[in-house]
Amino acid sequence: MQILSDNKAHGGRQLVVRHASTATSTDMTFSIFLPPQAEERGKLPVVWYLSGLTCTHANVTEKGEYRAACAELGLIFVAPDTSPRGPDVPTAPDGAWDFGLGAGFYVDATEEPWSKHYQMWSYVTEELPALVAAEFPADMDRQAITGHSMGGHGALTVGLRFPDRFRSVSAFAPIVAPRQVPWGQRALGGYLGEDRADWRRHDAVALIEDGARLPDLLVDVGDADPFIEKELRPELLERACAAAAIPLTLRIQRGYDHSYYFISTFMAEHLAWHAERLNRG
Amino acid sequence: MQILSDNKAHGGRQLVVRHASTATSTDMTFSIFLPPQAEERGKLPVVWYLSGLTCTHANVTEKGEYRAACAELGLIFVAPDTSPRGPDVPTAPDGAWDFGLGAGFYVDATEEPWSKHYQMWSYVTEELPALVAAEFPADMDRQAITGHSMGGHGALTVGLRFPDRFRSVSAFAPIVAPRQVPWGQRALGGYLGEDRADWRRHDAVALIEDGARLPDLLVDVGDADPFIEKELRPELLERACAAAAIPLTLRIQRGYDHSYYFISTFMAEHLAWHAERLNRG
Repeated sequence: MQILSDNKAHGGRQLVVRHASTATSTDMTFSIFLPPQAEERGKLPVVWYLSGLTCTHANVTEKGEYRAACAELGLIFVAPDTSPRGPDVPTAPDGAWDFGLGAGFYVDATEEPWSKHYQMWSYVTEELPALVAAEFPADMDRQAITGHSMGGHGALTVGLRFPDRFRSVSAFAPIVAPRQVPWGQRALGGYLGEDRADWRRHDAVALIEDGARLPDLLVDVGDADPFIEKELRPELLERACAAAAIPLTLRIQRGYDHSYYFISTFMAEHLAWHAERLNRG
Repeated sequence: MQILSDNKAHGGRQLVVRHASTATSTDMTFSIFLPPQAEERGKLPVVWYLSGLTCTHANVTEKGEYRAACAELGLIFVAPDTSPRGPDVPTAPDGAWDFGLGAGFYVDATEEPWSKHYQMWSYVTEELPALVAAEFPADMDRQAITGHSMGGHGALTVGLRFPDRFRSVSAFAPIVAPRQVPWGQRALGGYLGEDRADWRRHDAVALIEDGARLPDLLVDVGDADPFIEKELRPELLERACAAAAIPLTLRIQRGYDHSYYFISTFMAEHLAWHAERLNRG
């Protein structure tokens, strides 16, 4: 584990870390914010933030405006990368930004040539949590997960499949049903192959239809988000949660788009929502 | 005036604007945040933020974490670029980052080849304020100014030379005495020539020695800032303010460096400090 940078911020430490990943067979880079309470107290709750298409750890680290709230609430904040990277990692032959590099979709690819490196499910659910637990004062009994767009998809699917691991799940402008939208169809087809039955474990709406449950769920989407109708489709999540009696707080935020201007506006509210659940009992 | 982007954020609008500047004879780009109060109230107070070496408007706009506080306090926030830019604009022959592009030092250059475009003093003190006053709901009777590093130098010198215009002045890690430090000597010598008497009007410590006054002044500098001893030298400002009976609040912030992690940590406190003065009587 190599610390690439370590900057004091809001009383805590913002680190960027590189490590050799066995899941992806590449080096991986992530950021982790340790709030000021990490100096004095024992272990602290952890919020995982999964980023969207084209992003690295850096986008939310620079633009997410999470540090003030994490410092106030005593939360560790971890932001992984969105795909493996490196000279040996294949990317989309057409130079697409919605598949390949920066677009790992938080699945373990089974198809060639992706399967060797594109193992982001294992990376974010197994390898990185083990590293964070070993190296930082993270209370792994108090974890929350959130994310944006493709990372909202990641947060929902990871949260739904590990209900005992995460005390709270939220998302910003998530892709809720990748099986039913172009971004998701391309990614799941490319990484997992054309047997659509295999896609259901990576589709939040399908997981809920198939019985996965959450105690509650907070989702914000802007009504000026250019992807809302074709790619995000929050109404599908609303319908699935209603049928499954999952208490969903879906907030359609007037005038907001898909950018970090939207995310940063509601970041503190999401963190407060997670902190309330992380600090119960 | 061309609006390059317009994003809703923290209830207000973050704009990026390009316009043809007569001062610099180039296009210039700046950002302006209009808080939610701009929709309902009349004119609002304005905080000017001058950026440091290598920056454009984008650095503070993305990393400055000012929007939440400006939205709460009802402040317009304007961030100009740090130099003229374009194919005709000369830059340092040695590719330096502390002179030329991104390093206008907020002076009107008198030396060739800089004098044609490097007119940042006129740009930030005359042309841009006139444009902002004409196009946005800015109360020009309630202005404050701040900045970082080279932009802290700009904020101090502009503030000291326009005491009737600005109700409050603050700075993050400012260059306080460019006449006495390498960055400043190179820039002032290059832009203004070697007659050092001409430099005094662009040196905060010299301006104070020569009689300029402020009602008070807030300055933060990190003690882990790699430039503190050689380029920033806050002790020179401290000495000048003491001799002139200017109430200076100089906070040496333990563990903080020169980055936006430092700036964003203390941004909300600076904005609250300005708002208190902007909203008096």
